[in-house]
Amino acid sequence: MKIVVKKFGGTSVGSIERIRNIARRLHQEMASDCRYVIVVSAMGDTTDELTDMAYQLSKKPIKRELDMLLTAGERISMSLLSIALQEFGIFSISFTGSQSGIITDSNHGNARIIDVTAFRIREELVKHKVVIVAGFQGVSREKEVTTLGRGGSDTSAVALAAYLNAEKCEIYTDVDGIYSADPRIVHDYVKLDEINYDTVLEMAYGGAKVIHPRAIEFAKKYDIPLEVKSSFTFNTGTLINKELLNMEEKKITSLAQKTGLFRFIVEADSLHLLQAINNANIDLYDFTINGNNTIIVEKENYEETLTSLKPFLIIEECEVQSISIIGHRIINDIDFLMALIKEVKSLDTEIKDIKKNAVGINLIVSTRDIDQLLNKLHKNYIK
Amino acid sequence: MKIVVKKFGGTSVGSIERIRNIARRLHQEMASDCRYVIVVSAMGDTTDELTDMAYQLSKKPIKRELDMLLTAGERISMSLLSIALQEFGIFSISFTGSQSGIITDSNHGNARIIDVTAFRIREELVKHKVVIVAGFQGVSREKEVTTLGRGGSDTSAVALAAYLNAEKCEIYTDVDGIYSADPRIVHDYVKLDEINYDTVLEMAYGGAKVIHPRAIEFAKKYDIPLEVKSSFTFNTGTLINKELLNMEEKKITSLAQKTGLFRFIVEADSLHLLQAINNANIDLYDFTINGNNTIIVEKENYEETLTSLKPFLIIEECEVQSISIIGHRIINDIDFLMALIKEVKSLDTEIKDIKKNAVGINLIVSTRDIDQLLNKLHKNYIK
Repeated sequence: MKIVVKKFGGTSVGSIERIRNIARRLHQEMASDCRYVIVVSAMGDTTDELTDMAYQLSKKPIKRELDMLLTAGERISMSLLSIALQEFGIFSISFTGSQSGIITDSNHGNARIIDVTAFRIREELVKHKVVIVAGFQGVSREKEVTTLGRGGSDTSAVALAAYLNAEKCEIYTDVDGIYSADPRIVHDYVKLDEINYDTVLEMAYGGAKVIHPRAIEFAKKYDIPLEVKSSFTFNTGTLINKELLNMEEKKITSLAQKTGLFRFIVEADSLHLLQAINNANIDLYDFTINGNNTIIVEKENYEETLTSLKPFLIIEECEVQSISIIGHRIINDIDFLMALIKEVKSLDTEIKDIKKNAVGINLIVSTRDIDQLLNKLHKNYIK
Repeated sequence: MKIVVKKFGGTSVGSIERIRNIARRLHQEMASDCRYVIVVSAMGDTTDELTDMAYQLSKKPIKRELDMLLTAGERISMSLLSIALQEFGIFSISFTGSQSGIITDSNHGNARIIDVTAFRIREELVKHKVVIVAGFQGVSREKEVTTLGRGGSDTSAVALAAYLNAEKCEIYTDVDGIYSADPRIVHDYVKLDEINYDTVLEMAYGGAKVIHPRAIEFAKKYDIPLEVKSSFTFNTGTLINKELLNMEEKKITSLAQKTGLFRFIVEADSLHLLQAINNANIDLYDFTINGNNTIIVEKENYEETLTSLKPFLIIEECEVQSISIIGHRIINDIDFLMALIKEVKSLDTEIKDIKKNAVGINLIVSTRDIDQLLNKLHKNYIK
């Protein structure tokens, strides 16, 4: 049974018209020898609106109830898409995360998938039905509804693709594919036809809003080809695979950036510090332990981090940006590294950290004009 | 374990402020020797809005998906109420119909409760938690999400009260209790302190928007005292019980009316006619088979009814109103009946049918001014 999993994000199912459009497109492209599983996020801003309501009632709504609340979002989009498909004569059935057999741990708000028992999906696929699945959600062994946290719907899609041994997992989004840099900032960006898991992982960790790293790691582990493509045009997008089919000679594939980060240098026993961070349940964006401790967190965790750092001495604190320069062949190239440092400094930008990653170089900088820096680097190294 | 079940309808949970108000009130009145189960409907117009979206996509959305869609509504209100309660220091947990163990048949959109296995609720009550339950919804033996149709949340509440052997089931609404007639029409209405199941059932069937007949029948069967009261004031409302504690001397308890009805007299073999009605899945509001067949349907079923009557000859068709005059002692009182008929005719109103019910008289009339008629009858017989 040839199976394709397609995932549509919040924007793609953001209105009745868009939901109908997906149904229309699917109706046009469906192949009789293929079975389809459609994973959907909640419509548009639904998740944010529901979250807002919860925070109007409580500054710290308990996570179990927040999960119960938020999972209403995908329930709405999945059943509407199923209704839309049937209007085009396509037999379909929608399943919640629980009905789909997405089994997670009990960590409400940020649960991990620990098993997939999607026998109900398989049964319906055998009956030639298109199965629509609520992304982002699962169920714990204790039968409690959980959510997967950020990138949850991508992860749901890839996990199902792995379980179902799908031929491909397509991630539909509001862009044509993966670009060499952020098109809102870098003007002469290019769309990439292919990219491998490690590279796109590096981009995602570097801040590129493509697919969530969790989903990519999952895809890599189970060797699921991913395609990032547009939910408006349905055109061929960017294929993410184990090996590039056409390995290009280019040294650098892409740039990614992440802004709104806060970097603290803390004088503390590292274990005590990490324990404090862990107790506060704060996700560290990055950290280096090296004499002193350097931790980087995202803006939304800033206040909580300050609180948890109270027992320690903060030596330095500043807002920073992260730039990732991604490309397999550059990581051992000292000449490239020196040139890069000179380049960045010439733009009057202070380099806080430089780190070597699996497929690239990560710069933590403090600059007011990251756009200029990104455009300069893209011009120099990519195009 | 002393248990009280409280049910809040859509208006009562219609905004964040109202949800917070329920939490505040509950916090004030909670007794340490009592356990609470709260059944909620979807917020305000949520159900209608979700239904609208489905009908934008399809003229006939399949019912299984519609149930999936609509059940998102109570999921939102229940988790928000749970969050609100916790903000007042009340430990609480919310459950969907499925988690609550409301087992139904597979009749999507209008499922019947066939069993209640609410062991999870009991477990949480033992732990002193307030349990919040999504009304209106259940789960079939096939693990499919179902909805209970009209009056579903009331029915959920009463079914749980029966299963849990609750002391009382309180139905919170936007009025103070049950009135002797519709306050929007009859000016000198009075609030009733007590009423028995049969009387309120007659009122509900007669069109009074109090509690859905299904819920009342359930309460009567399991002898669950019901109290209809205001979700704004939390004041003592109207108690519905098996026997009136203070049987009053008044002959007539109340009036109820139902407008927007269509009455057809059809020449047909009665069995063929009923089969046609049944095939079209139309709820008959009333029928009489007596030489010819008289059927009465609600406005929303008008078009479908016309279609299903195509094979037959319609002898008469008109829009009618139903008035129920409710009171135990009047049904065998021929003098009263004659006086009533004269009264109605004097107001230039054509009586189409008169029927004797368990606790009252039902009139089917055709009038342009039902308000005048109701006020007149209320003045004559009640006050």
